[in-house]
Amino acid sequence: MTDFDGRKRVVIGAVSPEIDAGDFAVKRVVGETLVVEADIFADGHDDISAALLFRADSETEWREAPMSPLGNDRWRGEFKVEQMGVHYYTLQGWVDHFLTWQKDLRKKYEAGTEVGQELLIGSDLIERAALNAAGEDAKKLTAFAQAIREEKERDVVRAFSIATSEELSAVMEKYPDRKSAGTYPRELPLVVDRKKALFSAWYEIFPRSCGLEQRGHGTFSECERLLPVIAHMGFDVIYFPPVHPIGSTNRKGKDNTATAGPEDPGSPWAIGSHEGGHKAIHPALGTMEDFERFVRLAGERNMEVSIDLAFQCSPDHPYVKEHPEWFRWRPDGTIQFAENPPKKYEDIVPFDFETEDWENLWQELKEVVLFWVEKGIRIFRVDNPHTKPFAFWQWLIREVKKAHPDVIFLSEAFTRPKVMYRLAKIGFTQSYTYFTWRNSKREIAGYLMELTDSEVREYFRPNFWPNTPDILHEYLQYGGRPAFLIRLILAATLSSNYGIYGPVYEQAVSEAFPGREEYSGSEKYEIKHWEWGKPESLRDFVTAVNRIRRENPALQTTNNLTFYEADNENVIFYGKMDADMTNIVLIVVNLDPFHKQACRIQVPLKTMGIEPGRPYLVHEVLSEDKYIWQEEWNSVELDPGFLPARIFRVRRRLRREQDFDYFM
Amino acid sequence: MTDFDGRKRVVIGAVSPEIDAGDFAVKRVVGETLVVEADIFADGHDDISAALLFRADSETEWREAPMSPLGNDRWRGEFKVEQMGVHYYTLQGWVDHFLTWQKDLRKKYEAGTEVGQELLIGSDLIERAALNAAGEDAKKLTAFAQAIREEKERDVVRAFSIATSEELSAVMEKYPDRKSAGTYPRELPLVVDRKKALFSAWYEIFPRSCGLEQRGHGTFSECERLLPVIAHMGFDVIYFPPVHPIGSTNRKGKDNTATAGPEDPGSPWAIGSHEGGHKAIHPALGTMEDFERFVRLAGERNMEVSIDLAFQCSPDHPYVKEHPEWFRWRPDGTIQFAENPPKKYEDIVPFDFETEDWENLWQELKEVVLFWVEKGIRIFRVDNPHTKPFAFWQWLIREVKKAHPDVIFLSEAFTRPKVMYRLAKIGFTQSYTYFTWRNSKREIAGYLMELTDSEVREYFRPNFWPNTPDILHEYLQYGGRPAFLIRLILAATLSSNYGIYGPVYEQAVSEAFPGREEYSGSEKYEIKHWEWGKPESLRDFVTAVNRIRRENPALQTTNNLTFYEADNENVIFYGKMDADMTNIVLIVVNLDPFHKQACRIQVPLKTMGIEPGRPYLVHEVLSEDKYIWQEEWNSVELDPGFLPARIFRVRRRLRREQDFDYFM
Repeated sequence: MTDFDGRKRVVIGAVSPEIDAGDFAVKRVVGETLVVEADIFADGHDDISAALLFRADSETEWREAPMSPLGNDRWRGEFKVEQMGVHYYTLQGWVDHFLTWQKDLRKKYEAGTEVGQELLIGSDLIERAALNAAGEDAKKLTAFAQAIREEKERDVVRAFSIATSEELSAVMEKYPDRKSAGTYPRELPLVVDRKKALFSAWYEIFPRSCGLEQRGHGTFSECERLLPVIAHMGFDVIYFPPVHPIGSTNRKGKDNTATAGPEDPGSPWAIGSHEGGHKAIHPALGTMEDFERFVRLAGERNMEVSIDLAFQCSPDHPYVKEHPEWFRWRPDGTIQFAENPPKKYEDIVPFDFETEDWENLWQELKEVVLFWVEKGIRIFRVDNPHTKPFAFWQWLIREVKKAHPDVIFLSEAFTRPKVMYRLAKIGFTQSYTYFTWRNSKREIAGYLMELTDSEVREYFRPNFWPNTPDILHEYLQYGGRPAFLIRLILAATLSSNYGIYGPVYEQAVSEAFPGREEYSGSEKYEIKHWEWGKPESLRDFVTAVNRIRRENPALQTTNNLTFYEADNENVIFYGKMDADMTNIVLIVVNLDPFHKQACRIQVPLKTMGIEPGRPYLVHEVLSEDKYIWQEEWNSVELDPGFLPARIFRVRRRLRREQDFDYFM
Repeated sequence: MTDFDGRKRVVIGAVSPEIDAGDFAVKRVVGETLVVEADIFADGHDDISAALLFRADSETEWREAPMSPLGNDRWRGEFKVEQMGVHYYTLQGWVDHFLTWQKDLRKKYEAGTEVGQELLIGSDLIERAALNAAGEDAKKLTAFAQAIREEKERDVVRAFSIATSEELSAVMEKYPDRKSAGTYPRELPLVVDRKKALFSAWYEIFPRSCGLEQRGHGTFSECERLLPVIAHMGFDVIYFPPVHPIGSTNRKGKDNTATAGPEDPGSPWAIGSHEGGHKAIHPALGTMEDFERFVRLAGERNMEVSIDLAFQCSPDHPYVKEHPEWFRWRPDGTIQFAENPPKKYEDIVPFDFETEDWENLWQELKEVVLFWVEKGIRIFRVDNPHTKPFAFWQWLIREVKKAHPDVIFLSEAFTRPKVMYRLAKIGFTQSYTYFTWRNSKREIAGYLMELTDSEVREYFRPNFWPNTPDILHEYLQYGGRPAFLIRLILAATLSSNYGIYGPVYEQAVSEAFPGREEYSGSEKYEIKHWEWGKPESLRDFVTAVNRIRRENPALQTTNNLTFYEADNENVIFYGKMDADMTNIVLIVVNLDPFHKQACRIQVPLKTMGIEPGRPYLVHEVLSEDKYIWQEEWNSVELDPGFLPARIFRVRRRLRREQDFDYFM
């Protein structure tokens, strides 16, 4: 394809999407469409044609879709992705001598110029195309060429009309002369994931806190009773922090104290003891069979289990003895603990990714992932990926997805923006975000524009978490129950992937260390016993929101987000629509958890194709209220104590009288 | 450099400048500095260091410049380019274990932690660096390591102070451990031209119109008398339209009429007759020796001659007989003329760049360029480059510049923006622009921002022409002498490269075909006899402007342009400063050629480092008026009938009393 031929006159550039010259892949899920644009042009005034070429990694032949000009030398084409895995796309353009000839013929003819020679030139072109055609088409083209030649002598008007006929154009379009087509020099990668990569609702839970007895260590068997509850709420991913044996050396006590009492269970992230490491189950949680049974039962309720990939060890991890070369040792012969001076994590030792033996380390960690894949796990929440080399993740994710393209990796990195984006570029399927720290209207809109209206949208799939075991933002600490409702609505409707640190969120737990974002009495260091059925819990609200997400395809993707005007700084108004506008959802949220706010919102009538003044129906799907609106600007009042948000489903067109019945 | 090593933890991206993933070169001239920025970071919290690597194409070893962090993982480095030709640059970053160790040591020490082990770790690092050092440095490092080891037992304060000393850091900086450095995957090209590529004043003249006799065909010998005149005006490039024999078949008459009278000289762009083609001189202009003599004499006055590369032929060109395969033939055996239907150019036949014999055609056209290079020509104005394949120009310019890096190619393309930019990307040194059609304040500022404040600045060097033989804008047609002054000032101060279609501009010739931009009685089709010494000519004004350009380094580059506030829509205010602000030029122009305009302008005191309220001196270099201003906002009044512009040279600092004397 790169053999140099000076007659290739068409050039292609400014391809979009293209991430860092194709160093990194664009992401889509099965069923989505990849729209590609590029500058495509040739020297001179000749007409050109262009095609978008694409193939799955396993295919050797390119498939193609036609491209259309948008003006100013910009072209667009698209194709629908139908299978998981790595794909490639590129572009091709060529001078279209037939189109050029038709265009010039028309101009000359209309200017009254003699076109006898032009008609002969055209017949030649058509005859040459006939040589590439077969069967009916070849016959047709030969006949067209002959007809033009003959009519040119008898009746130029007739010859011209044949030469410019749609019938001729339609056949010629099938046999373009592409021997001098210019091809874009790069084949750009596209990774296609399954739909859950784009649309998922996560519920984080510590299995050890699911015990039936008030003081006991929960087991997977005991967790089973929660499956119908979580399924009913509408989550489809249950995420467990590490389920492996926990070390005893330097085990942390309650609230991250340096010394643990004999009853303290330790942090699940201090992985590994004499009972095993990253491929073992903590005996107190049950057996591997119990774990597999839980995964299977979850699957029966259409939920998947995600486990944590925390690539670090307790000092008691078998690796430390078996592979001392994978760790860093200090001059006095002691092992180097994890630290970020002056902070120390004495219950954890990091791998030394600069070890001479890095290749075996990488292989072993890949084995860990494949071990759990074997056990039925297809979703991994990756702990602190930003403290391991980028090249490692890039390799690991590629290797795992080669055989298992359905595996999803969620990057848990709350770090510098460029590091977070890089992790997404090198392959993470979903990513934690700064959503947790974006609470004002301006912050939320600015951040969401960055995520959905820049190149970031092509490779970074946000997963919005209002809270995690590590972070309880002061907005939730002080905002009370309304704050929990507000942040849940925002997370679940701004981003199609979202999650909550489950029971804690449901019960609006908000006790933190003063001036910090750390839960006091954190579940990371102790076993909790949540009152699962508390009547004042958010469970019904969460259930409603998840149901609305499932019922509205527009909420099942993120990049279709648009913000609209709301004339109150405490109220944010945005919407999502699917491509054919059969599903339109408008959301208005009061960001002030303390006060009722009234506001006027500007409904995007023009976008929706509704004439101002014409009635349209809005169905508020949280309250089941229905309204008929008529104007562009409408008033809403949002009481945080009752319901701080509205989710309107809009009916774009009223075709028949009885459409009103549906609402009334 | 690309051998995979999983321990390379530093990644590099978002390099700027980088044109289309390095497919195209960034441009600079000798003496300029290339500033490069990039995102550079590693996993985790370790400190990193980075270097900018660069080399001339002929060099095999990289030279390097250190990079500094700008915050948010952005780094910057720079180097000065000192020789013409192709260069490459790339980037390297590495985890700096010594810096990381120092940083962590400081944190721990300040937190009161025991640092005995840390000091030992550091001595090891220093000893390892000593192995890479030699002579004094090796001795010093060994001594540092030993001192830390010893003092750690006696006096930790002292050990700490050695470990964090500037002396130690300075030596260690010379021996970084870069075995696991990450290198940017692309080597990015940079083309360095001579200074004239960036700073040039062009004077276009038809040599056939320089005859001494009132009706005769001018010769190169007769042109010689104009050399002192043009040199005095301050131009440094004399550009001749094609100087080759002109065909007689279908020769154009006056005003582009289809039939020429026996006296009509024809268009110089209809190149080639039985007297020769692209390597011949039109006999009426003189001999090759006359031409070479003119070029030599011009050189003695520090002017260069540019000729036109118009790759097209008259039907009488020797190529047509010798290489019929390079042209397109119609079914009736006649040659295909140039046309852009319904327009026809019957005196010109284009090359068929789709010919099977394209390689020989390319070679021959390269021979044409080298032929004139041999005759002393180093500047080519390329006619209609956008009607020949991009790949051809890319190859031709690269080939010619390989042996002659001082050759300058000016792209004469007034076509679609993407085509113009592409021509610059593939190698043209300077480019025609849309300046001719940008006349309002908004249009001018918008266009200049596009050229100087976007990626375009890195590869597209504008050359501003207020008029050409092809284009007389209606602004000049109707604006009278003031319009010519205004457009000249704008061209010459907005862009460091500019040119005028000389005698016609000097004499403010403004006769055009009604409703068109074409000169009536165009010099393209007839011999003119300009009254060279007309007293009302713009000659003195042009001379002053060119002198001011030469005296002010800030005007000798384009991308340093900034627009400032002027509170009148007819007045534009902008400035240029050199990097160290020793030369500051502020320009204010009345764009209305008919009316006097008063206006207040906001002088960028902050940028210039002048405190408001403090007096500063401005020297108006067109009128030689001098002012002491004191405020940010100042009033100017611009009378187009007298002088529609002011060029202020600002003295930034008054250090001594006598500085005032200079102005008073």
